[in-house]
Amino acid sequence: MTVKPLNRFAVAPLAQMTRRLAEVAAGRAEPDLVITGARVLSTYSERILPDREIWIAGGRIAAVKPAGQHRGHAPRHDAAGGLIAPGLVDPHLHIESSMITACAYAEAALINGTTTIVCDSHEIGNVLDVNGVEWMLEDARAAPLNIFLTVPSTVPATTSELETAGGDLTAEKIARLFDAWPEAVGLGEKMDFVAVAAGDERAHAILRAALERGRPVSGHVYGRDFVAAYAASGVTDTHEAVDADIADDLLEAGLWIFLRGGPPTTPWHSLPKAIGTVTEYGAAWKRVCACTDDRDADDLLAFGLDWVVREAVARGIPKPAAWAMGSLHGATRYGLDGEIGGLGGGRRADLVLLNDDLVPQATWYGGERVVADRKPTPRLEEALARPYRYPAPAYATVRLPDPLPALIPPLPAGPCTVNAIRTTLPGIELSHERVALTPGADWPATLAAHDLCHAAVIERHGRSGGIAHGLLSAFGLKRGAVASSVGHDSHNLIVAGRNEADMRVALDAIAAGQGGVCVVEEGQVVAMVPLPVAGLVSDKRVGAVAEEVRTLKRAWDRAGCSIPYMGFNLIPLSVIPQIRITDKGLVLVPEMRQVPLFEAA
Amino acid sequence: MTVKPLNRFAVAPLAQMTRRLAEVAAGRAEPDLVITGARVLSTYSERILPDREIWIAGGRIAAVKPAGQHRGHAPRHDAAGGLIAPGLVDPHLHIESSMITACAYAEAALINGTTTIVCDSHEIGNVLDVNGVEWMLEDARAAPLNIFLTVPSTVPATTSELETAGGDLTAEKIARLFDAWPEAVGLGEKMDFVAVAAGDERAHAILRAALERGRPVSGHVYGRDFVAAYAASGVTDTHEAVDADIADDLLEAGLWIFLRGGPPTTPWHSLPKAIGTVTEYGAAWKRVCACTDDRDADDLLAFGLDWVVREAVARGIPKPAAWAMGSLHGATRYGLDGEIGGLGGGRRADLVLLNDDLVPQATWYGGERVVADRKPTPRLEEALARPYRYPAPAYATVRLPDPLPALIPPLPAGPCTVNAIRTTLPGIELSHERVALTPGADWPATLAAHDLCHAAVIERHGRSGGIAHGLLSAFGLKRGAVASSVGHDSHNLIVAGRNEADMRVALDAIAAGQGGVCVVEEGQVVAMVPLPVAGLVSDKRVGAVAEEVRTLKRAWDRAGCSIPYMGFNLIPLSVIPQIRITDKGLVLVPEMRQVPLFEAA
Repeated sequence: MTVKPLNRFAVAPLAQMTRRLAEVAAGRAEPDLVITGARVLSTYSERILPDREIWIAGGRIAAVKPAGQHRGHAPRHDAAGGLIAPGLVDPHLHIESSMITACAYAEAALINGTTTIVCDSHEIGNVLDVNGVEWMLEDARAAPLNIFLTVPSTVPATTSELETAGGDLTAEKIARLFDAWPEAVGLGEKMDFVAVAAGDERAHAILRAALERGRPVSGHVYGRDFVAAYAASGVTDTHEAVDADIADDLLEAGLWIFLRGGPPTTPWHSLPKAIGTVTEYGAAWKRVCACTDDRDADDLLAFGLDWVVREAVARGIPKPAAWAMGSLHGATRYGLDGEIGGLGGGRRADLVLLNDDLVPQATWYGGERVVADRKPTPRLEEALARPYRYPAPAYATVRLPDPLPALIPPLPAGPCTVNAIRTTLPGIELSHERVALTPGADWPATLAAHDLCHAAVIERHGRSGGIAHGLLSAFGLKRGAVASSVGHDSHNLIVAGRNEADMRVALDAIAAGQGGVCVVEEGQVVAMVPLPVAGLVSDKRVGAVAEEVRTLKRAWDRAGCSIPYMGFNLIPLSVIPQIRITDKGLVLVPEMRQVPLFEAA
Repeated sequence: MTVKPLNRFAVAPLAQMTRRLAEVAAGRAEPDLVITGARVLSTYSERILPDREIWIAGGRIAAVKPAGQHRGHAPRHDAAGGLIAPGLVDPHLHIESSMITACAYAEAALINGTTTIVCDSHEIGNVLDVNGVEWMLEDARAAPLNIFLTVPSTVPATTSELETAGGDLTAEKIARLFDAWPEAVGLGEKMDFVAVAAGDERAHAILRAALERGRPVSGHVYGRDFVAAYAASGVTDTHEAVDADIADDLLEAGLWIFLRGGPPTTPWHSLPKAIGTVTEYGAAWKRVCACTDDRDADDLLAFGLDWVVREAVARGIPKPAAWAMGSLHGATRYGLDGEIGGLGGGRRADLVLLNDDLVPQATWYGGERVVADRKPTPRLEEALARPYRYPAPAYATVRLPDPLPALIPPLPAGPCTVNAIRTTLPGIELSHERVALTPGADWPATLAAHDLCHAAVIERHGRSGGIAHGLLSAFGLKRGAVASSVGHDSHNLIVAGRNEADMRVALDAIAAGQGGVCVVEEGQVVAMVPLPVAGLVSDKRVGAVAEEVRTLKRAWDRAGCSIPYMGFNLIPLSVIPQIRITDKGLVLVPEMRQVPLFEAA
C-alpha cells in the first residue's frame, strides 16, 4: 500500500484546480471536508466573523460560507464555536537554530499552528556551502510543512581575513540557487550591513543577483546611522529592530518590520521594544510581521510564532491584527498571499483551530488534520516516521587540528591590558572591556582575580586548523568547561573553560560525535546535545532533542554561565557589536578591525 | 544633440544602482537633487512626518533625511513646507477609455500626481488582437510614465455565439504575451464571471496560463452569489464592488478591493458605497486600493486618481491612509512595493508635492520635474512632442458592411411584446423592460407612444457584417442620432436614433474617420470626437481631445440622452446585467441567453 505523501506538494497548484474549486464553491460538487460551527479570524479585514463554515476540496479552501449552508454528505468537523484562523507564516527563521532537521521542525511548527516558514539556511551553508543548502532544501521538500527559502546571503558572515568558514557562497552560486529552486523566494538576511553600507563589491554583487531576478532582500542591521545606506542598497525587511526608534527609522526607509519574539530569558525578545513604532509612535501595522528567527528545540514548543503573536496582543495589538502580523503580512511580503495567510478562496487549507486566547488546539495542513489536542495525529506521526535522510558527507564536518594546539595562551609576563569580551544579558551584544591585567601566580589565580575565563575558537572545516585565544569577562563559569560546534556563523568550535584539561575533554566529545553542545565538569561530560548533521543539527525528533536541550540547560545553569548557551554560540558572530572572537582572533564591530588579546598597559 | 529619453527606462534598475545609492545615502557622494523643507506623507506608517528632505540620485531615492542635513553642493528644491508624497499608482484602468494613446495619457496622469498605472488594454485587444496589445505596449514603453499591463483576459468578452469581436485572445496567446513582456504583471479583469463560476473550459485555461506563471488575476464580478466560485477560481482583486455588502464579501473571499471613483455624473463612482466595508463594517483598509478604471479625456484632469483619493478622505479615511490606498497598496498588490508606492530607500524618485488638501502642485518622475504649478515643464513638453506612432493597420479598423443593411426593423404587424433596454442613470446596469407594444401608423408614432428609440449594433471587424436591432426605453433622445465605434467590449458600432437617415449619417461619419463618437441632428454631424487608432483612440494630446469631448457632451445633452455617452458605449457590453445588445442580438445577463426583440404578446 502506498501512502499519500504529506508535504507541500501533496496539494496540487491552484492553476490546476480552479475548475474543481469553482464547482465545489458553486455547490455543484461535494467538498472533501466541511469545518462547520466556527468563528473565523479574518486576516484580511482584521475582524472575527461569527457562524461560518469552511468548504475544503483538494487541500484548498473552496469557500467560507455561513454556517449550516452545506447540505451534502461531505465529512464534517464541528468546530464547536471555536475560532478558525489561517496557519501562521513565519517570514524569517533558521531551522538549524532548533538543532533539528526540517522534517523534525515541521512537528513543532504544526503543533504551534505554523504551517509555512521562510527559512534562511545560512548556518548549514556556512558549514557545507551549496551542498548544505541543497540538502536542507531536499529535507524541506519532504517535510509536512510549507518551507520556502531565503538564499543565504552572507557566507561567510564577514571575510576570510576575519574568520574561516566552511562555505563561500559567491554571487554566482547564489544566482544558481535562485535559478534552480523555485522556493527560493528571496535573499536571506544580508548580515554584513557594514560592508553593504560601505559599498563593498562582493556584498553588492550578491544583492544584484537577487534584485535582478526580482527577489526581495532580507536585512540585518544594527545602528540607526546605517539605516539610510542599507535601505538604499535594496534591503526591504529586517527582524533586527531592537527598539522603537530604529524600528521606526527602518519602517520609514521602506523595510517591512519583522517583530522578533523569543523567550524572555534569551536575547531574542526584541518585540516588546520594537513594537513601540506602532503602540507608541502610531505607525500603521500593515507592514509589520512577527517572526521567531532562532529558537532551540526546547523553546520551540513553548515559544512558537503563536506565542509571539500573543506577545503582540499583550502589547495592545487587537487579536485579529496580531494574527495577521503572524500570517497574512509575511505572506504578502513574499508575494504568497494568493496561496497562504488568509482564508480566501483557492488558498491552501492550512488552518488552525484556536481558543479565545489564540492558543492553537488543532491544525489542518493542506486540508488534513495533523494536530488534535496539541498532539500529532496518526496521519502526521506516519509522515514524521519517514523523514529525509542527509547524505554521509553531512555527517562528517568536524575536523579538529591534530595535534590540538594549546587552548590557553601563555600567562603574560607583566601588567598589560586585555581586550576582554564582557558577557551580559540578554547576550546578543557583547561589551568590549579593556581589563588592566596584573598576572598572578598562574592562570587560575589570574582569572579569579579579574573575573575572567578562558575562551578559544578552533577552526573545524579542515582548512587552516587555526585557533584564537580570548578571555571572557563576567562569564560566571565556576568550573570545568563548555563548548559548542554551533559557533555562529562560521560554526567553528568555541570552548570556554576554567582549565585546559576540561576544555580538551569538551572538544574531544564534540569531535567524537561530529558536533554538539556540551558541559564538562572535572573531566566528565555532564550534558551533551549531539548534533551530527553538519555539526549543527540532530537527526532525532523534536521531543527527543528538546529533552536533551533541557538537560543541557540545567547543567549550563549549574555551571554558572552568565549568558545562556545560545548567547554563548553567538560569541564568534562578528557582525554584532562590540567585540567578538573568531578562529582568526578578536574582532571589533562595527569597525571590523582585529585587536590583539593583550596590549601594552 | 541627443536628448535623454523620459520614460520608464530612463532610470536604471535598482540592481545596477545599489552601490551608488549607498554612497549617496552614506554621505560619501553627492545626490543629483535634494528636495528640502518638506513634510513627508508616509504611505508605510500612514503618518505625516515633519521637516524632512529627500536625497535623489540616478532617478531614485537615496534617502529621506531630517531637513537641513545635506551640506553639499547638489541642486536643491525648497518645498517650502509642502507635503511630499510618493506618486500615485493606479492599479486598474483602460487607457483606451480616455480615447488617447499611452503617451498622451502620461501628461494627464503626471499632472494629477499619478506616476504609475496598471492598464488593461482589452479594448484594443478586442479590435486588433495581440497586435493591438503589443502596439499599445510599445506606446507604453515610450511614455513618460510607469505603465504595467494586466493582459486582457476576456477577448471576446463572451463567446462568438453572442457577439463578434476583432480579437480572440486564447490561453496560448495570453501565455505568449506573459512570456514576451515582463511588464505584464497580471491577468486583466476576468469579465466573464458567469463562465468562470460555471467552470467554462476556455475561461479556466486562461486563468491557468496566468496562475502557473505566478501572475495574479484581476476580477470583475457582479452579484454576491458569484463571489465564492469566482474567488475559488483564483481571482484576487476586483474594482467592481458596487456596495459595502459585496465589497465585504469580496474582501473576505481574499480579493484586494480597488475602490473605483469616477465623476459623480457617470456610472463609475462606486467608491462612496463600496468604502462602507471599511467605514461602516470596520474592515481593515490594508487591502483596499483606489483606482479610476475608465475616464474620458475630459474627465481625466478633473477626476484623476488624486480626486478618488480625496473622495476617500471625504468618506472618513485619514489622509495618509487614503494616499496609501492610492499608491502603496496597489504597488503591494502587484509586488512592486520595492520599486514604487512609498519614499523608501532605493525606490524610484516618483514624487508629488501636495497642498494640505492633497491636491498635487508639482510632480517629479524618475527624479525629473515634469509638472510645476499643475502644468507640464519644458522637459515634459519635449517628451510629449515625440510620442509613439501606431502603425498603419491600427488606422484601418472600421469596416462597414457594404451595402449597409436596414438599421431599423420592420414595424410589427400587430400588438406584441418588446424586449426593450431601459436606460437609467448611472448607466452601468440596464434594465430589461418588457414593453407591451401596440404599433401605430409608423415607427415615429410608435416610438413616441411608447417612449422608445431605435438602436442597432453593426459588426465592424470585417467578419460577419451582421447587424442587430434593438429598442431603447426612456433613452430621451429627442431627435437625430448618436453613434460610437467604442461599443464595449467588442467595439462594434452602436447607433441610436429617432430615424434611419440620421443613423446612417452618424455611421458614415464614423466610417469616414475610421472611428469616433458623434451626435447628428437633421442630417448634420453637430459634434464628433475622431478616434482613428483602432476606432478607439485619438492620436492628439489630451487637452485637444478633452476639448472635443466637451463639445460632444454639450451636444449629447442637448440631444436629450438620458445616460452619458460613456454609458451609451456600454450598451453592447454583455457581461453586465440585465439586457444588452450585440451584433448578434439581445443578450440577457447573467443568464447569457439571447432573446428576440419582438415576442408574441
